[in-house]
Amino acid sequence: MSAYAAPLKDMKFVLNELAGLAEVAKLPGYAEATPDTVDAILEEAGKFASGVLDPINHSGDQEGSKWTESGVKTPKGFREAYKQYIEGGWASLPFEHEWGGQGLPKLVATAVEETLTSSNMSFSLCPLLTQGAIHALELCGSDALKKTFMGKMIAGEWTGTMNLTEPQAGSDLALVRSRAVPKGDHYLISGQKIFITYGDHDLTDNIVHLVLARTPDAPEGVKGISLFVVPKFLVKPDGSLGERNRAQCASIEHKLGIHASPTAVMVFDNAVGYLVGEENKGLSYMFVMMNAARFSVGLEGVAIAERAFQRALAYARDRVQGKELTGGKTVPIIHHPDVRRMLMLMKSQTEATRALAYVVAGAMDTAARHPDKDIRARNQAFVELMIPVVKGWSTETGIDVASLGVQVHGGMGFVEETGAAQHLRDARITTIYEGTTGIQANDLMGRKIAREGGATVKGWLGMLAQFDGELAKSKSADVQALRTALAAGAKGVAQCVDYVLATAGKDPNAAFSGAVPFLKLMGITAGGWQMARAALIAEKQLASGSGEGKFLSAKIATARFYADHVLSQAPGLATTVTAGAAAVMALDEEQFLAA
Amino acid sequence: MSAYAAPLKDMKFVLNELAGLAEVAKLPGYAEATPDTVDAILEEAGKFASGVLDPINHSGDQEGSKWTESGVKTPKGFREAYKQYIEGGWASLPFEHEWGGQGLPKLVATAVEETLTSSNMSFSLCPLLTQGAIHALELCGSDALKKTFMGKMIAGEWTGTMNLTEPQAGSDLALVRSRAVPKGDHYLISGQKIFITYGDHDLTDNIVHLVLARTPDAPEGVKGISLFVVPKFLVKPDGSLGERNRAQCASIEHKLGIHASPTAVMVFDNAVGYLVGEENKGLSYMFVMMNAARFSVGLEGVAIAERAFQRALAYARDRVQGKELTGGKTVPIIHHPDVRRMLMLMKSQTEATRALAYVVAGAMDTAARHPDKDIRARNQAFVELMIPVVKGWSTETGIDVASLGVQVHGGMGFVEETGAAQHLRDARITTIYEGTTGIQANDLMGRKIAREGGATVKGWLGMLAQFDGELAKSKSADVQALRTALAAGAKGVAQCVDYVLATAGKDPNAAFSGAVPFLKLMGITAGGWQMARAALIAEKQLASGSGEGKFLSAKIATARFYADHVLSQAPGLATTVTAGAAAVMALDEEQFLAA
Repeated sequence: MSAYAAPLKDMKFVLNELAGLAEVAKLPGYAEATPDTVDAILEEAGKFASGVLDPINHSGDQEGSKWTESGVKTPKGFREAYKQYIEGGWASLPFEHEWGGQGLPKLVATAVEETLTSSNMSFSLCPLLTQGAIHALELCGSDALKKTFMGKMIAGEWTGTMNLTEPQAGSDLALVRSRAVPKGDHYLISGQKIFITYGDHDLTDNIVHLVLARTPDAPEGVKGISLFVVPKFLVKPDGSLGERNRAQCASIEHKLGIHASPTAVMVFDNAVGYLVGEENKGLSYMFVMMNAARFSVGLEGVAIAERAFQRALAYARDRVQGKELTGGKTVPIIHHPDVRRMLMLMKSQTEATRALAYVVAGAMDTAARHPDKDIRARNQAFVELMIPVVKGWSTETGIDVASLGVQVHGGMGFVEETGAAQHLRDARITTIYEGTTGIQANDLMGRKIAREGGATVKGWLGMLAQFDGELAKSKSADVQALRTALAAGAKGVAQCVDYVLATAGKDPNAAFSGAVPFLKLMGITAGGWQMARAALIAEKQLASGSGEGKFLSAKIATARFYADHVLSQAPGLATTVTAGAAAVMALDEEQFLAA
Repeated sequence: MSAYAAPLKDMKFVLNELAGLAEVAKLPGYAEATPDTVDAILEEAGKFASGVLDPINHSGDQEGSKWTESGVKTPKGFREAYKQYIEGGWASLPFEHEWGGQGLPKLVATAVEETLTSSNMSFSLCPLLTQGAIHALELCGSDALKKTFMGKMIAGEWTGTMNLTEPQAGSDLALVRSRAVPKGDHYLISGQKIFITYGDHDLTDNIVHLVLARTPDAPEGVKGISLFVVPKFLVKPDGSLGERNRAQCASIEHKLGIHASPTAVMVFDNAVGYLVGEENKGLSYMFVMMNAARFSVGLEGVAIAERAFQRALAYARDRVQGKELTGGKTVPIIHHPDVRRMLMLMKSQTEATRALAYVVAGAMDTAARHPDKDIRARNQAFVELMIPVVKGWSTETGIDVASLGVQVHGGMGFVEETGAAQHLRDARITTIYEGTTGIQANDLMGRKIAREGGATVKGWLGMLAQFDGELAKSKSADVQALRTALAAGAKGVAQCVDYVLATAGKDPNAAFSGAVPFLKLMGITAGGWQMARAALIAEKQLASGSGEGKFLSAKIATARFYADHVLSQAPGLATTVTAGAAAVMALDEEQFLAA
């Protein structure tokens, strides 16, 4: 099996040339993020990913986490890897110094997160959920809660979970039924939660559950949901662990993928819980964290795509089969045009999704810390617009790329021992959790576009129009092909935005039946924008003799491929959005059964 | 879990209205295929599929076939189901009366095969491979071989396998190394074969392996491969079983899907084998059978898509989540536009792939039996052109539809107990075995188009142009939208054909790097052709008051949806084929590693 190596050259190119690491490092508190420091961090992260997490990825999948009476056992090697994860300081990377964190920008943490996820998505989910829980406490928790839990969680000594879903309440959290009854300084929480990632495990001594529940007099629907901290073990005033709380993992799911990551059914039976923030504001707190969580899942799409690409590339260079079309020799399959096409589809889409995700991460840093309020607001609006795109498009793309990875392997791809199939199985959850692609698309079309009259998306289209002028100056045929394809994508987006603004209010079904094709159109266009930026920069660096020639010319060729093989879908998607609505809702339910 | 029901209304509509069952029944020897008889057969097949095969599909997947010292054990219920399969006469359906078959047309057998495959793809693979082996014997075997094996195999008492692949020889059979040394009236076969479907099992007393191997003085490459019959147990002159042959199943693969279907590593160690036909002609015999085998795998795409659709539909009608966009009530998710869009994508593509497959099956019957030689030849050319499309496009579509099925289920789709994930896992092999999509696409572009100067495909485009005139007469807006989209698809195909004819000879990489996008374009256009035919017929039946209104209006709406959401991709695919070649081969191997 091929070993994972962090794609450091592309990561650094994207960080420095596209996502503006130098500008981010000028933001208050980020002075440590110098190019040298960031390079060193990425090198070390790559080593940890390749040396520690990658070797237990396939074995962890095959063994899986197991439920036992005494708690969930993670697969062989996970406890040791987690210990090294903490010792390496990876847990504390993006958090404030105040709580023992290293205070590094989101942009840098993003690159590190990608490499850890590429090497072992199942492992990466434990830190991911912990970070979500930390953010919830950081943003909404009382000082006492922060003091009790945050330091330990940032150090990685305790992990966190998010308990939202119940059997009857998935995408629709209005249906949450878990109860929270006040008792003195705390509440007693009861109810069943499902799909709880790392709801139980043997990596740490304690687990800090964040749980959505209703107080006795809470209003119905989403306005009556509160957020609680429910630790697995209660914490004594001195910070040591006290008695076992009545929060039990009843079972774990038998899933298609991410086998090493336990997905728990949690039962709370008058468990002691502490209110986070105010009563009935739980859902709004969840929304505050949602951008970060959705972004991270989008990044999983990038990470899985990269891993699947590396594995397929190694196989295609090794596997000898068939003669070259232009000559007589039996050759490694990378010589065959269709295999090459698949590898280029994998490579170009991986690079496009990475570029967009990192650019959004950079904008998150700017939105959070730039001294100029208008710049903060503008970046925040861009982030809000692009989060559902990063989440929805990168994950849909990640599945496609992982499936191509299986295909490159031929029959061996269907056999589990090669590991290609695992990536497809693992990737398949990413378009579902933290809001399905449909939910992302509705968020994009509704909250992020229709609600504000399309202001931010039109601003972005204006930026694309300006960028078109820059592309026009290039004499490269590749760049001109990109320019044409990108302009067609932008035109498609503009047509759809006009359509959405005209229909969303008076005929929401007509607008939203095209939400997912629109999200894909936004994604491939935004990805094309980054690939075109990259090509232009590569062209300039090549002309000036800076940078590495092979990498830069590959970047241009990859961007060109993206224009012809991916961006070329844009006009068709725009047609689907603007003309395809009526047919979506045309059948009544009975007609579905009339076959 | 939702139960499978054969989609009899759509099957009959396609058989009668699109695939010309009445015409097929007029062919010599097919007089028994009257509408009443065919209806009765389909009803019974549907009952067998729903009552016997569907109930052991999920359990068979979870249990899997197991290798033991004494042979492979199939999952619980498979032996009993196989017994009922034989007793029901399903094994002998498409074979000649002479050998105990029922002599029914390929078209009818196709509909039966779809329903058995939908209900249990793993089970269906055993008959599928047996049919392939029977065809090989029928077409190329000596009378003695036929007499010994064919009757038992057609009765289903013995099963058959195809032993082509070796570790170093997958898509490239020139690399086959297995040896066959002549000894008296037989040969001694030695070598290792992999990926042998039902290479061992406990369903029958004997297994008839068809094995590719080289005789001692055979030329190198594909012209030195011979085909042999190697039974698991030797057969005595009286037809009873003799000693165990030296053909052993060494292990079975741990696969992504089709767990109940054992995929064997077979070791032949001086096993007794009998030559089929002449020495060194093995590969040409395989090609004779290949159309049937590839067609059947294409049909697996249809079958899995149908099953996944039915399961997703049942879930979407049952699962209550979220409020209607246009009102205030919490509703089953089928009310939500994006869920509806996914269901329509599933439904429309299932119907389109079914229609094309059945039409090709009808053409197979005509090509085989029509009294007029020219009509036979024309139909055979159409079949040859469309086989790689049915195989490649239907299976790629089947995977997409199965993946949509998971998505409709949300988080429950990722949990194995719902069964949605199994369809995706099972479907994932179909674009690989019997020739990958890349192999199909090369066959389509090279042998079926470039080699004959595009004569057949241009004939088909002429047929589409003529059909456009019929569509023009309709006053329905839906039909006119179909007409526009179909014309765009046909135009794209024509552009690509011109491009292929211009480049395939002088720059094969330029042509073949677009082979798979071209195959997809051919598929969605051919599917659109059938959907448009269906819509026109439905319109006429509705106007005349014949047929079932709900079914017919659903057919028109589904065809319209297909135009806006599937056919709309055609121009983009044509762009990729005609403009995207250069970028495919632009990188050298080192550049792939420069990230």
